[in-house]
Amino acid sequence: MNYQTILEEIYEQIQPELQIGKVANYIPALKEVNADDFAMSIHLLDGTSYNIGSYNKKFSIQSISKVFTFSMALEIYSKKLYKRVWHEPSGNPFNSLVQLEYEKGIPRNPFINAGAIVTTDTLLSHYKTEDKTFEAINNFINRLCKEKIDFDEKIYNSELKHGFRNQALASLMKSFNNIKNPINKTLNIYFKHCSLMMSCEQLATSMLYLANHGIDPKTKEIYLNSSRAKRVNSLMLTCGHYDASGDFAFHVGLPGKSGVGGGIVAIVPKKMAICVYSPRLNSKGNSHAGTKALELFTSKTKLSIF
Amino acid sequence: MNYQTILEEIYEQIQPELQIGKVANYIPALKEVNADDFAMSIHLLDGTSYNIGSYNKKFSIQSISKVFTFSMALEIYSKKLYKRVWHEPSGNPFNSLVQLEYEKGIPRNPFINAGAIVTTDTLLSHYKTEDKTFEAINNFINRLCKEKIDFDEKIYNSELKHGFRNQALASLMKSFNNIKNPINKTLNIYFKHCSLMMSCEQLATSMLYLANHGIDPKTKEIYLNSSRAKRVNSLMLTCGHYDASGDFAFHVGLPGKSGVGGGIVAIVPKKMAICVYSPRLNSKGNSHAGTKALELFTSKTKLSIF
Amino acid sequence: MNYQTILEEIYEQIQPELQIGKVANYIPALKEVNADDFAMSIHLLDGTSYNIGSYNKKFSIQSISKVFTFSMALEIYSKKLYKRVWHEPSGNPFNSLVQLEYEKGIPRNPFINAGAIVTTDTLLSHYKTEDKTFEAINNFINRLCKEKIDFDEKIYNSELKHGFRNQALASLMKSFNNIKNPINKTLNIYFKHCSLMMSCEQLATSMLYLANHGIDPKTKEIYLNSSRAKRVNSLMLTCGHYDASGDFAFHVGLPGKSGVGGGIVAIVPKKMAICVYSPRLNSKGNSHAGTKALELFTSKTKLSIF
Amino acid sequence: MNYQTILEEIYEQIQPELQIGKVANYIPALKEVNADDFAMSIHLLDGTSYNIGSYNKKFSIQSISKVFTFSMALEIYSKKLYKRVWHEPSGNPFNSLVQLEYEKGIPRNPFINAGAIVTTDTLLSHYKTEDKTFEAINNFINRLCKEKIDFDEKIYNSELKHGFRNQALASLMKSFNNIKNPINKTLNIYFKHCSLMMSCEQLATSMLYLANHGIDPKTKEIYLNSSRAKRVNSLMLTCGHYDASGDFAFHVGLPGKSGVGGGIVAIVPKKMAICVYSPRLNSKGNSHAGTKALELFTSKTKLSIF
Repeated sequence: MNYQTILEEIYEQIQPELQIGKVANYIPALKEVNADDFAMSIHLLDGTSYNIGSYNKKFSIQSISKVFTFSMALEIYSKKLYKRVWHEPSGNPFNSLVQLEYEKGIPRNPFINAGAIVTTDTLLSHYKTEDKTFEAINNFINRLCKEKIDFDEKIYNSELKHGFRNQALASLMKSFNNIKNPINKTLNIYFKHCSLMMSCEQLATSMLYLANHGIDPKTKEIYLNSSRAKRVNSLMLTCGHYDASGDFAFHVGLPGKSGVGGGIVAIVPKKMAICVYSPRLNSKGNSHAGTKALELFTSKTKLSIF
Repeated sequence: MNYQTILEEIYEQIQPELQIGKVANYIPALKEVNADDFAMSIHLLDGTSYNIGSYNKKFSIQSISKVFTFSMALEIYSKKLYKRVWHEPSGNPFNSLVQLEYEKGIPRNPFINAGAIVTTDTLLSHYKTEDKTFEAINNFINRLCKEKIDFDEKIYNSELKHGFRNQALASLMKSFNNIKNPINKTLNIYFKHCSLMMSCEQLATSMLYLANHGIDPKTKEIYLNSSRAKRVNSLMLTCGHYDASGDFAFHVGLPGKSGVGGGIVAIVPKKMAICVYSPRLNSKGNSHAGTKALELFTSKTKLSIF
Repeated sequence: MNYQTILEEIYEQIQPELQIGKVANYIPALKEVNADDFAMSIHLLDGTSYNIGSYNKKFSIQSISKVFTFSMALEIYSKKLYKRVWHEPSGNPFNSLVQLEYEKGIPRNPFINAGAIVTTDTLLSHYKTEDKTFEAINNFINRLCKEKIDFDEKIYNSELKHGFRNQALASLMKSFNNIKNPINKTLNIYFKHCSLMMSCEQLATSMLYLANHGIDPKTKEIYLNSSRAKRVNSLMLTCGHYDASGDFAFHVGLPGKSGVGGGIVAIVPKKMAICVYSPRLNSKGNSHAGTKALELFTSKTKLSIF
Repeated sequence: MNYQTILEEIYEQIQPELQIGKVANYIPALKEVNADDFAMSIHLLDGTSYNIGSYNKKFSIQSISKVFTFSMALEIYSKKLYKRVWHEPSGNPFNSLVQLEYEKGIPRNPFINAGAIVTTDTLLSHYKTEDKTFEAINNFINRLCKEKIDFDEKIYNSELKHGFRNQALASLMKSFNNIKNPINKTLNIYFKHCSLMMSCEQLATSMLYLANHGIDPKTKEIYLNSSRAKRVNSLMLTCGHYDASGDFAFHVGLPGKSGVGGGIVAIVPKKMAICVYSPRLNSKGNSHAGTKALELFTSKTKLSIF
């Protein structure tokens, strides 16, 4: 299949969609992007890659970081992790407290905020200090993308200053004893990994391990065992887009994870990893044009896990 | 792969699980089964099939019928159907009214009771009378399984007599004008197709169209276009097991649909359809041993869509 | 105190409020009223009475009937009634199913629809047939108001035809076995007593027993023992206006009960009963001008239970 | 009426109830009380008072402090306060986050934790510093009870250390901009006034202003205008006992406020203030024997606002 041609077609067809939706505004620093930007990268297991748009421009990966931290925690804790975070779609917005209260502080899955905060908390328990934990997360991603990445100080500070909802989630879970470290330490790391800056190209490369049973196709490094890699993919399918996860599965048909920074990653098992970027979000907090581009991609290529 | 050997291994390993869980008791007639029964059938696209246990014994297909009625309605109404029933996991038990009230009578998906009642209501609007509608549903399944099937009068009457919760769901949706026909007519058909009796072997054969892009692999009859067939599969993955759908995706990794009669069907796209039966249910209303058997099957075969 | 002068002042001051709000439109027959009507009646224990506006005009008493049926059921069943309907504010709209589902079919209080349906169901169990039950309710009120009253056939039929939400409530409670008679029989009586037509003057007179420890001040007939009469009053205060009950207690300071027909009754213990009527409702389903008129009345007279 | 005899009767009859329920254990320091203690004080407007049991022993007033801080805030802000905290029963437990999320950070009433935190926040905005705010609260109560009171350092520290749920509430409201000061400052004051230690006798005296239209019957000092005093009473009636408020109104029939320290205050308008203490709590978090004692009191005296 000629993926470059397909990307060019998508690029053309997506233009009218680039004006639709709104850039995330819950933290001021996130608003300072070019709202009309678009980028898409396709990286195959064989090392070939196809890119279009501003695919080198870095953006805030936000919730996409939850895929990396969950992979790390799953490899460290295995089934023990399931007691502290489930793997069920929430059917609710990403930062809802309601369900968390009914369900005694156990988040539905690691891809809603509460679940990712718990995941980060388990990593802090393992790596002991804030610095070592963030370093471990950073290293994990650096090795996957083969380039040095870093977080954006301004976005991080903005998260810290406006993160009252996440503080409420963490406090509520702490009241149920499902946060083991001091809230502010866990949240510092959480906000830091959400503030990591990566390009479409870097993210597509970094996600290849999930298309390849947990193994980096280039370096052959094993990040997750095969069965766990499949589980991460299944979670991306059922829970990767908050309360629009079913819609994404229905229309795109691939495991994926979005972030409010405007990025979405998607996996075609045994074939490729994809990343798309466009900062305007739909009402569910997912990139509007990004979702449309992935729909176009799977219509054109007939790629689907179903 | 030697599927018969695999079935035999599963059959042996599943024995201790057959005592766990409880047979559905919300309607008296459902209780009258052999609680320790187990059956499993694997039907490949090439026509070969493998079976074990009581694979010829008929049981009440219950919610598995929702896959057939949704396929029919999707082919008739296409996108128009989405206005009356969504495709999002509910995160709630199968018969919950809470979400339905908040969401103004639009059910989350066609595989929870409310959604299946709406689906049935659309079929009644299309086929006009109760008799013609049920006949159409029955014909659809007869053609798929190449055998004549029928509903169980006793179970049907039991449903009618004890179906207050479903009546509440239908009344609530009617108050939002999302049921177009008289409630009792729609519910009669709904209860009737839930009371259909089929064997593991019949169900496995009947589901092959979903493993084959909507086309019956034997007769080449087209039941759904390719893209719609994938959508049914995606819905089975995200919503096929009520509020244990994520868990099923996580541990089994295949699209599937369970019924409180004890049956579960699962699809390996482009390869096969599977049916497993064991009437004792776990706390979420899904066959306990059936779920375990499918987990064993995907561990042994490494088959997974992820 | 010169109550007639006070009524005249209120009548003048209330004029601008008579245009605010919307007449109940959930059943067509309720819409056919003069939207700008206003009436108010004050009946003292000593037999004197003061009236203004269209105080002789009959209107649909709707939920005000719940006070009468609950009084009857409380006198028949006493504490046994509390197992089937509580006495706690719901904090939710009058016809919500959410709480009812969480709380296993036991309604929060007898003044929300679900609770009043259960109350009616207990009366049907006691009086055996639909006809005798409705006759008993009718007699109870006839004796209190010393005039013959009747229900409006058109409103009753309209309720029957559009009462899907109430049917949903009844079905849900039946599924929890908290409705003992056939749903349609219980609902017929419920809809009938909601369709009773009474004037402001008749309602004020009829409520005097609650201002007088359960005893009709004129005939000395005992309708409720003293402690139960106080309990009905306490329920009117905490639950009489759905999720605006706290607001009514805060601003008016008297036990009261409103109906979507536009009537509100209020009690000044040991002194008087009041009825006010104006069909335009506020967003919570209570008469807008009626509530304002009662606020003016308690400001002017300093009457309050607090 | 011979109130001392009545207190003696209650004291005798309440003995079997003193073993029922459990002392609050959500913070360790609260557990260190004599679980079987009982005290009751009745203070009349004319200055006479009646006491029984350990009426001089100080206990942690906990949520009873919310009556004082709300009185202060109401007198300072008047109607402006209603935009930040409503006056509606919540129908939910005292520390629930669910409703607060649906209702965009505006607490239902000032007597649930969230509402009292907002009230404290308004006082901090008025008095500018933590010290001055707590001093003002302390002065307000000192003047009412004519004795110097203070908070318990150990309980305060225990609250600080274990107050994750209250932190979650405050963070959630901050995310909706309904907390104007830094969370930790507002919570420090909130925890401090909850940790105030008072005896039954002191509390009964201190509440007399609410039985007397807002005026201290002894010093004639005006704490609230008459209409506001009635509103505080109405709030105690509809919201004073969390999700058992209706039950308290139903069985006791007086405005009241309970605290998890085991105290309950109640008001007989124009007559008296009552305080009862017994640390074992019922399942709703209210003193078990305290509630029973008040029921006995109103049965014996026939005092009731209804």
